[in-house]
Amino acid sequence: MTWTSKEIHLATRPTGYPDGDTWSLVSAEVQDPAEGEFVVEVDHISLDPAMRGWLNDVRSYVPPVKVGEAMRALATGTVVASAHAGFVVGDAVVGTFGVVEYAKSNGRGVTRLDLDVAGAPTWLGALGMPGMTAYFGLNDIGRLQPGETIVVSAAAGAVGSVVAQLAKAMGCRVIGIAGGPDKVAWLKEIGLDEAIDYKSESVHKRLRALAPDGIDVYFDNVGGEILDAALANLRRGARIVLCGAISSYNDETLAEGPRRYMSLLVFRATMAGFVVFDYEDRYPEAVAALSKMVADGSLVARETVLDGGVEGFPEALLGLYDGVNTGKLVLKV
Amino acid sequence: MTWTSKEIHLATRPTGYPDGDTWSLVSAEVQDPAEGEFVVEVDHISLDPAMRGWLNDVRSYVPPVKVGEAMRALATGTVVASAHAGFVVGDAVVGTFGVVEYAKSNGRGVTRLDLDVAGAPTWLGALGMPGMTAYFGLNDIGRLQPGETIVVSAAAGAVGSVVAQLAKAMGCRVIGIAGGPDKVAWLKEIGLDEAIDYKSESVHKRLRALAPDGIDVYFDNVGGEILDAALANLRRGARIVLCGAISSYNDETLAEGPRRYMSLLVFRATMAGFVVFDYEDRYPEAVAALSKMVADGSLVARETVLDGGVEGFPEALLGLYDGVNTGKLVLKV
Repeated sequence: MTWTSKEIHLATRPTGYPDGDTWSLVSAEVQDPAEGEFVVEVDHISLDPAMRGWLNDVRSYVPPVKVGEAMRALATGTVVASAHAGFVVGDAVVGTFGVVEYAKSNGRGVTRLDLDVAGAPTWLGALGMPGMTAYFGLNDIGRLQPGETIVVSAAAGAVGSVVAQLAKAMGCRVIGIAGGPDKVAWLKEIGLDEAIDYKSESVHKRLRALAPDGIDVYFDNVGGEILDAALANLRRGARIVLCGAISSYNDETLAEGPRRYMSLLVFRATMAGFVVFDYEDRYPEAVAALSKMVADGSLVARETVLDGGVEGFPEALLGLYDGVNTGKLVLKV
Repeated sequence: MTWTSKEIHLATRPTGYPDGDTWSLVSAEVQDPAEGEFVVEVDHISLDPAMRGWLNDVRSYVPPVKVGEAMRALATGTVVASAHAGFVVGDAVVGTFGVVEYAKSNGRGVTRLDLDVAGAPTWLGALGMPGMTAYFGLNDIGRLQPGETIVVSAAAGAVGSVVAQLAKAMGCRVIGIAGGPDKVAWLKEIGLDEAIDYKSESVHKRLRALAPDGIDVYFDNVGGEILDAALANLRRGARIVLCGAISSYNDETLAEGPRRYMSLLVFRATMAGFVVFDYEDRYPEAVAALSKMVADGSLVARETVLDGGVEGFPEALLGLYDGVNTGKLVLKV
């Protein structure tokens, strides 16, 4: 049998924001799986800030998406045909299936999901890559200690909201930064000590007022002026975790760097980057810890699920950079 | 008895480069020491890049020099009168005596020198604060390992030249960056594997050619474009040691930050600052190690000694930012 799969392919590499020329909607035929393969019917596609970087033809931590190929994306789905010893029809799975309706897989990087623990969108969010990113970034790079003061940017986002709640669970003082009153209200609702609306407040002044003795850990998802505001308000021995720089991912030229980087010297501080894939062999540790918190209610896993199928991907991606989502942004197929 | 001391005082805080209005030449009277004090006749004054920062009225790792007071400076000298149990007339000493001919001290932060080990200028250079900075920055912050590739900027300067030679002694591949053919020639002479003249070569391209597999440690004394060139050429797990940013110390506005800071993420790298004063209780360890290397010839301690007395300080300081020195820049009184 064959499956007809609508897919979003990369048509031309964008400069700046992806537009109508960037993508093509393609109808592909997926054939019966060969020995060692299976076919997945995709139900939810993850939208990730890092996607913009995958469109640039530059050396990075993963190779760029090739022109003419399906856009890379994490997704959940159900196995609908299998010639693979490890997966049977009906298995719920997550993997890098792409922005497609049907994907063929050899099982590499694919994990089975327990939908009794949480729904598929959560397995793309708090229990998926964003959750892993939050867990290892906070513990291994930020080395957050109980009682410390931590600032998280994009705190209402997929990674930030997990970081903030993990830090609260550790007994830390947590200051979140987000855009708009709704996100700020949600952050207070899930227990953050303070929340700053960067769209209407001076982050620099508010950080100075809220953390007059300085910040121990700054978990950076955004870069730009907010990173500079954090650098200006460090405590001695502070750690900055570089997780992302969403404010500049669509810039046509390399954005300005953090002017206040010499604060690292004054405060004997460290700024370190990481890539979550390096922690792959420890994902089970993180999934166990985060699942337990979801189950006992100490971690609120929230997703913004968009309808619209794979055709909706181009608009959904722009929405991500616009901050339409609270929690993880997911596209329903 | 009293001593007449010519001194350079801070007259007005400069914007940009210090000029004629910045300094005043003052004649002060130094009285006989009270109980617990002694008087030092200064013979050599240290010129340090960090001095420019001490003139700004901002919160930093040391308080700013006050207007109307003698300029802060490390210096060597001889005790000429003492009412202090720990120091006798004739002792050779080093301390933060300032840009003065005679200083009164209570002994705090003052160390006796062994002039048989090295002359006074070396005690302000390779065996002084620059040597301490090199030693702890390289070992404790850079965590340099034998066999690694290290890049050092301002490699012909007081700190950089010690860093480069310590790294060679550890069996590392050392690439120095300096300004002009004379400095480059000297770096080759003291054993560096490669030396880049940033005034006539593209540092970015040369680093890519000389270290195609990337840099393990970058010891940064300069900031600016050279820091960006290093960021673009890291190896996975690289460490950047932020020691200084001499390229921007005289800027009137905050210079641009490192545009390529997100390389820290791609390369899972760390950028960390430090202040040498934090290692004060371990200075003896560093002095012992560095003295041994000076004695056995594996560390060439070089100084550029300017004549001219305290009156020569304003011009000497500008010369430092202009890079007139090879090795440590010292003003002879």
